[in-house]
Amino acid sequence: MPSAPHIEHHFTASETVRDVVIGMSDGLTVPFALAAGLSGAKVGTSVVVLAGLAEIAAGSIAMGLGGFLAARTDQEHYQSELQRETREAREIPEVEAAEVAHVFEGWGLTQQQIRPIVAAISSDEKRWVDFMMRFELGLEEPDPGRAVRSAATIGFSYVAGGLIPLAPYFFLDDLETGLVASVAVTLSALFVFGCIKARFTGIPWWRGGSQTTLIGGLAATAAFAIARLFR
Amino acid sequence: MPSAPHIEHHFTASETVRDVVIGMSDGLTVPFALAAGLSGAKVGTSVVVLAGLAEIAAGSIAMGLGGFLAARTDQEHYQSELQRETREAREIPEVEAAEVAHVFEGWGLTQQQIRPIVAAISSDEKRWVDFMMRFELGLEEPDPGRAVRSAATIGFSYVAGGLIPLAPYFFLDDLETGLVASVAVTLSALFVFGCIKARFTGIPWWRGGSQTTLIGGLAATAAFAIARLFR
Repeated sequence: MPSAPHIEHHFTASETVRDVVIGMSDGLTVPFALAAGLSGAKVGTSVVVLAGLAEIAAGSIAMGLGGFLAARTDQEHYQSELQRETREAREIPEVEAAEVAHVFEGWGLTQQQIRPIVAAISSDEKRWVDFMMRFELGLEEPDPGRAVRSAATIGFSYVAGGLIPLAPYFFLDDLETGLVASVAVTLSALFVFGCIKARFTGIPWWRGGSQTTLIGGLAATAAFAIARLFR
Repeated sequence: MPSAPHIEHHFTASETVRDVVIGMSDGLTVPFALAAGLSGAKVGTSVVVLAGLAEIAAGSIAMGLGGFLAARTDQEHYQSELQRETREAREIPEVEAAEVAHVFEGWGLTQQQIRPIVAAISSDEKRWVDFMMRFELGLEEPDPGRAVRSAATIGFSYVAGGLIPLAPYFFLDDLETGLVASVAVTLSALFVFGCIKARFTGIPWWRGGSQTTLIGGLAATAAFAIARLFR
């Protein structure tokens, strides 16, 4: 895509930032809620720690590998569509040329204006296929190194986030004190995380902060209520 | 985007299917791994069920509300960029016209060919802004009802997925039998789920099936090992 002098105003999160946000927001929320729920069921601090660590292991692997496969599937999907478009540009050029023309008709150009454009685009196979990929199918070429980076970033962020709600239970033997400390530490961490995340999504910081805090609080309350109900 | 007769070959998942996949793949994996991990730590069937239910409550709320906010943030981001582009088309039309021209230069058109195209596109403010949104910023208008639907679909899919690995523990008192049954039931469910999911991502069914089974198995093994280590 071409860039113009004022384009830096349109700030969007980089893929790494998005992966950190994906991993950390679930890492902060789910182990926190699980620990709170088990505390409500009065199972003993060691079980809370055990379940929390098992959850962090499970969640980080599930999300990390999930991210890996999603990125690799994107890559494969792009390649297979690229091959299809290249084949079609060779085998049914008149259909593909009509599709290019169709894109421009949608922008209110006349047939007379469209003809040289279609000729220019279809004069170069790479450019033609690139046009079809982007404007007919809306696909951008994915970065081939992304799958591994994405998996590691999501996984580590989940672990980092998940250890925050669990930390108080490591140091405090009393379950109730542990729960209170975990709630205080995690809701604060969720608020700070939400404020930082808001900078990347372009919403006001106080709304970003209160949204993540609210989600974490609701999830923990629900887990607490369910565990109380079924214990 | 314009559609052509052969476009139906390019099948991509609808947003609802993607939401079901998001919710169910984590719902099948994480409660499964947590239950396996706790079984390894020999905590008693009731604790496994309790922790599993608490995790399902926490995970479904965290993922459901997360999906809700992500969809709403997309919506707001689109609206704020739309306002910015509309303002810019009015206040600095020459800069915006140059950006339109720049897009077409990238496709190898001459200045002479570009001039009438830019004139045609910028003659209509709505069309002009629409062009900038799509081709400068790569943004499509999100469906306004999506946030609520997305939250509900992800949340329910997580619950549906999470109850599968937990079900054996409801009916079997013995922890070891419960674990064996849960592993058998969940790995089968993960395989079937992966095969169905593969239909939407375009990879071979046996690869889709083995991938999800592998992720679930790895997550459960890691949770089991961690819980053994720390019990």
